[in-house]
Amino acid sequence: MNQIGYMYLHFDQSFSYDITKNGYSYKRRGVKMNHMHIAILGGDARYLDMIKKLSENEQIKMELVGFDQLNQGFTGVKQTDFTSLEVEKLDAVILPIPGVDQNGQLHAVFSNECIYLDDKWFSRLSDSCVLFTGISTPYLEQMKQTNNLKLIPLMDRDDVAIYNSIPTAEGAIMLAIQHTNFTLHQSNVLVLGYGRVGMTVASKFKSLGANVQVGARKASDLARIYESGMDSFHMNDLAAYTGQCDILINTIPVKVVTEPVLNQMKLNALIIDLASKPGGIDFDYAKQRGIQTKHALGLPGMVAPKTAGEILANIISQLIFTH
Amino acid sequence: MNQIGYMYLHFDQSFSYDITKNGYSYKRRGVKMNHMHIAILGGDARYLDMIKKLSENEQIKMELVGFDQLNQGFTGVKQTDFTSLEVEKLDAVILPIPGVDQNGQLHAVFSNECIYLDDKWFSRLSDSCVLFTGISTPYLEQMKQTNNLKLIPLMDRDDVAIYNSIPTAEGAIMLAIQHTNFTLHQSNVLVLGYGRVGMTVASKFKSLGANVQVGARKASDLARIYESGMDSFHMNDLAAYTGQCDILINTIPVKVVTEPVLNQMKLNALIIDLASKPGGIDFDYAKQRGIQTKHALGLPGMVAPKTAGEILANIISQLIFTH
Repeated sequence: MNQIGYMYLHFDQSFSYDITKNGYSYKRRGVKMNHMHIAILGGDARYLDMIKKLSENEQIKMELVGFDQLNQGFTGVKQTDFTSLEVEKLDAVILPIPGVDQNGQLHAVFSNECIYLDDKWFSRLSDSCVLFTGISTPYLEQMKQTNNLKLIPLMDRDDVAIYNSIPTAEGAIMLAIQHTNFTLHQSNVLVLGYGRVGMTVASKFKSLGANVQVGARKASDLARIYESGMDSFHMNDLAAYTGQCDILINTIPVKVVTEPVLNQMKLNALIIDLASKPGGIDFDYAKQRGIQTKHALGLPGMVAPKTAGEILANIISQLIFTH
Repeated sequence: MNQIGYMYLHFDQSFSYDITKNGYSYKRRGVKMNHMHIAILGGDARYLDMIKKLSENEQIKMELVGFDQLNQGFTGVKQTDFTSLEVEKLDAVILPIPGVDQNGQLHAVFSNECIYLDDKWFSRLSDSCVLFTGISTPYLEQMKQTNNLKLIPLMDRDDVAIYNSIPTAEGAIMLAIQHTNFTLHQSNVLVLGYGRVGMTVASKFKSLGANVQVGARKASDLARIYESGMDSFHMNDLAAYTGQCDILINTIPVKVVTEPVLNQMKLNALIIDLASKPGGIDFDYAKQRGIQTKHALGLPGMVAPKTAGEILANIISQLIFTH
């Protein structure tokens, strides 16, 4: 197999299984495989589909730590005891979505065992080892400094956020259909924020026939909203736009839906907040006015865990071979 | 008010309340109102939003029969006892969605009283009275013949079916998001039938990024599907298309998803049947194979009762003034 073929396989294996399914695996061709040794240390249900997808990549040899209560088995995946893990040999380590807490403890829902990663443990990792986590934590940042680690917080990546915005928008659509007594078609939808999530949400609701208005601050965002055929307004003018709104979807992680904004809203309007905690809504005041609110977090894992797992597996597969 | 203004008001009142809200009602202008006397005889929760919408039309004077258990009141709507109803004076009668059964009994869920409409009752209706029902029944057809009635089965109308296809498609979207672990985006969706419902369902799923293939029989339908940018296939070839399908949505009220078709399907595929009873799926065989099926009937009333009620109210408002 020539170099180009090898590169092609690298790329393709991270996004599809067709090539291996069609019998083009390294083994059958007699080419020596350079396995990537990956350890997955803890995690919750969101990781199961990621593990399944990664396990289909023949270039990856995986060991699971902190999954001892898991009944499900994966072909070619080994459950390993934390203490017997050969840390020095690892090419990559995947930590849970919430990372490691201030005491170095791992979030491992499929294990009763408490697993701590201390400075000594991190120092055993090879220079080339890549460390993945969902989000970084002060403790992990400290370990990164001390041990010169290659740390990749997956959820901070633009590509992951954009891929995840698809199941997030579908989750918002599901909630909007469930919790209103009218069709999304021809309803007045306000989307606040036109970032990685807001852009997807606005376009999906528009494609279902809703009258979408998007609030943003950046002049370039307002221009892009206009270009996309939707109405735009500056967030400073929000209160002037909420009166006719049937569904308000917020993606801004700052309290933007305040008392004066809520005072303009119809009482049968629905508010969906997609912004991370504490969200962008004055929930207490909304409740006081009797306006229905849904603070919907982690929608990708809820409405499309398989897709959410595949998004992580695809990105990890790409990154471990390019770092 | 001139004739044109009057016509405009007629049309507009059936689709919006703005004109009356803005103070342009007949009374204020001192124009004599020709009220339409309507009796609503029985019905279920689906009728409440219709009644609410109709009650906002100042040209309509409504009486409810068979709603005695209803706590909710509507402005300007009178609850009337069946026996005291002045049948001869009615301009229109609205019967329940399922019509009247073979004994002449009305379906009235908000009443303990059993109400029967006999031949004598129908004979009392004036020649100009319009009778609305959801669907016709053999009994109603017989009464229509005997008494020369103007009977309009609303659910048979193309316009009602097309308006209702919107909440139906949104309900199918909700179910598809709820009952799969992947995103609709990039999923393989087969839609069977390209009639009033199939056309809406296919276009909505396509607009959410699904790979939609539509099965139909008519050459003109296959051409229209192609024109809409989707893949089409002849229903005779269905079994050749089900292997890659993630979600199958049937709208054909004939058993088209048979054993040989189901044998090709992935076990984690989802089948949504929107066709009226008994539907188009071999449900027993699907269950035997472990394929998840949802026979989703009456979605408009479930996911968007307000919109579903408004659709009926709008059509009735149009028809009573033009018949």
